[in-house]
Amino acid sequence: MITVNVDLGDRSYPIRIGAELIGQTELFAPHIAGSSVTIVTNETVEPLYGEPLRAALAPLGKHVSTVVLPDGEAYKNWETLNTIFDALLGAQADRKTTLIALGGGVIGDMTGFAAACYMRGVPFIQVPTTLLSQVDSSVGGKTGINHPLGKNMIGAFYQPQAVIADIAALRTLPERELAAGLAEIIKTAAIADAAFFEWLEQNIEALNRREPAALVHAVKRSCEVKASVVAADEREGGLRAILNFGHTFGHAIEAGLGYGEWLHGEAVGCGMVMAADLSVRLGLLDEAVRRRLVALIEAARLPTRAPALGDARYIELMKVDKKTEAGTIKFILLKKLGETLITDAAEPALRATLAASL
Amino acid sequence: MITVNVDLGDRSYPIRIGAELIGQTELFAPHIAGSSVTIVTNETVEPLYGEPLRAALAPLGKHVSTVVLPDGEAYKNWETLNTIFDALLGAQADRKTTLIALGGGVIGDMTGFAAACYMRGVPFIQVPTTLLSQVDSSVGGKTGINHPLGKNMIGAFYQPQAVIADIAALRTLPERELAAGLAEIIKTAAIADAAFFEWLEQNIEALNRREPAALVHAVKRSCEVKASVVAADEREGGLRAILNFGHTFGHAIEAGLGYGEWLHGEAVGCGMVMAADLSVRLGLLDEAVRRRLVALIEAARLPTRAPALGDARYIELMKVDKKTEAGTIKFILLKKLGETLITDAAEPALRATLAASL
Repeated sequence: MITVNVDLGDRSYPIRIGAELIGQTELFAPHIAGSSVTIVTNETVEPLYGEPLRAALAPLGKHVSTVVLPDGEAYKNWETLNTIFDALLGAQADRKTTLIALGGGVIGDMTGFAAACYMRGVPFIQVPTTLLSQVDSSVGGKTGINHPLGKNMIGAFYQPQAVIADIAALRTLPERELAAGLAEIIKTAAIADAAFFEWLEQNIEALNRREPAALVHAVKRSCEVKASVVAADEREGGLRAILNFGHTFGHAIEAGLGYGEWLHGEAVGCGMVMAADLSVRLGLLDEAVRRRLVALIEAARLPTRAPALGDARYIELMKVDKKTEAGTIKFILLKKLGETLITDAAEPALRATLAASL
Repeated sequence: MITVNVDLGDRSYPIRIGAELIGQTELFAPHIAGSSVTIVTNETVEPLYGEPLRAALAPLGKHVSTVVLPDGEAYKNWETLNTIFDALLGAQADRKTTLIALGGGVIGDMTGFAAACYMRGVPFIQVPTTLLSQVDSSVGGKTGINHPLGKNMIGAFYQPQAVIADIAALRTLPERELAAGLAEIIKTAAIADAAFFEWLEQNIEALNRREPAALVHAVKRSCEVKASVVAADEREGGLRAILNFGHTFGHAIEAGLGYGEWLHGEAVGCGMVMAADLSVRLGLLDEAVRRRLVALIEAARLPTRAPALGDARYIELMKVDKKTEAGTIKFILLKKLGETLITDAAEPALRATLAASL
């Protein structure tokens, strides 16, 4: 087992990364102070890991309840969030009740937001069971739900007590979800660590085959890079925005097709291809680097062609992005591997990128 | 104009207290950084103070929109909150948009929570127009909404950029709402400042007559006392809980009758009478002090007899209070004027208090 510490002063917490961690009582014990625990999971994950987690918690003698939500981004909304509040109030959960998020990014985001809001804040632990959530939603404290007019529009910055990233849980992950996780790993390397990018180019097939040693290294390095960015900018004042490379286009794809049609990671994969295209068009990035990025995204079995939503719809959707200021869309663009630039883009270049990406 | 500074490190902010402040552009100017402002108010307050506020903002050249909510505690729920999010997204509000809460405690709590959650946090300014919100929701950063199973169960700690408490707005306040504000002022004096309590005993008729000088002093001293308590314990780990004197019983009254039947301050007034009765019964408080407290609450024209909900219902309702830990109800009790004790209570004493309070 490897530990990555996220350093945020009195909100610091450890990420444990390794195989067969969900069953280890001692990983949970230090992080549960109160007398009760509520596990929040979904109907797909509950039959796989619900019992093992409850078995790990049993020796602690806590009152444990479980809320099972429907599965999918389409349910990342207020109605589903409210079923968590209903369950907590029904179980007379108090301010010391610990929530455990057992599942992927949707479960992590909703459970974290529920923990941020229930009685104005209760502790929670992340147990991410997808590759995407192990590398992405584990670090940064971003929680929230979608609004019909925009993704993750309602939420909070709220840190967990600990993250338990069990690589063994990735054995049951569908192919598409594995690729979606690789998208975020590629993104992290592209924006901040050229050596890690090269390691990914050499090890992408091992990752596709889910070799545990490769997965542990990829998750560890992604979490380390992201943790250092977040530690420098917890509330996304500046530097942290670079983590949104590929996300401005990606969010537009997700919202335009309807949440859940493409996976978040798939949209980010294609969004990076589009952002790299725009970077080349604006004279920021070498064409050779763009080709390496596209090749790696393809090797990870991610889509690289954008859905045809129409220029006007893309631009409209990108304008509700949280990075937009006074109606100007801000893009995270690439200068070289490991170096980014945040800027707006002239509309002709943007339209050319949209046309070239179909 | 008097200023009380709330000292919370990088979340510090000023409270301005005085007459005719809503129209003063220069009070708002330093606290609005972005290019747009959304005023959140209700159908009662909008016709009175909406135009004066917009006139004060006009010289700043911001894009100003207004959301008008229905009036009352009964609307302090997710559905109403969502109309704020709909309006913000419809107006393409960004991360630098400033929300202004123009109204009483319900408007302040909901606007503050909307500001805490919209894009994971945008700035907001409180313009409280009731006596209760000027002394209570202006200080402490408590924001949130009600859940059918409990008051203020969903929320966040989130600080405003500034509070503009315009005493002139109290001229239009209904009698019952003035008394409800006096309840929180009496509470603050009782738990933390015996000299202020004596001042209130001497000046309660001037306050009932809404004499501006008396109101300014009462609001100022309440804010000062509350600010010092909050500064020592921003997230309600310990000391801050004393501000809930009267609230455990009060919340049960509000929830038991249905939110909006009694005003929050009326329920707190009666709740203080009940908490003082329990304090005497447990041998903590002199009967003479209890009588002074009851006399002052009566002089403020507040109810001192509790509604007959039945013992079992009272106890059930108090168990969902946020101060409850592992099923044990915690009471804020009085030892003398200015000194409190947080404890649980044996059920016979509690039942005796409930019987005596009808």
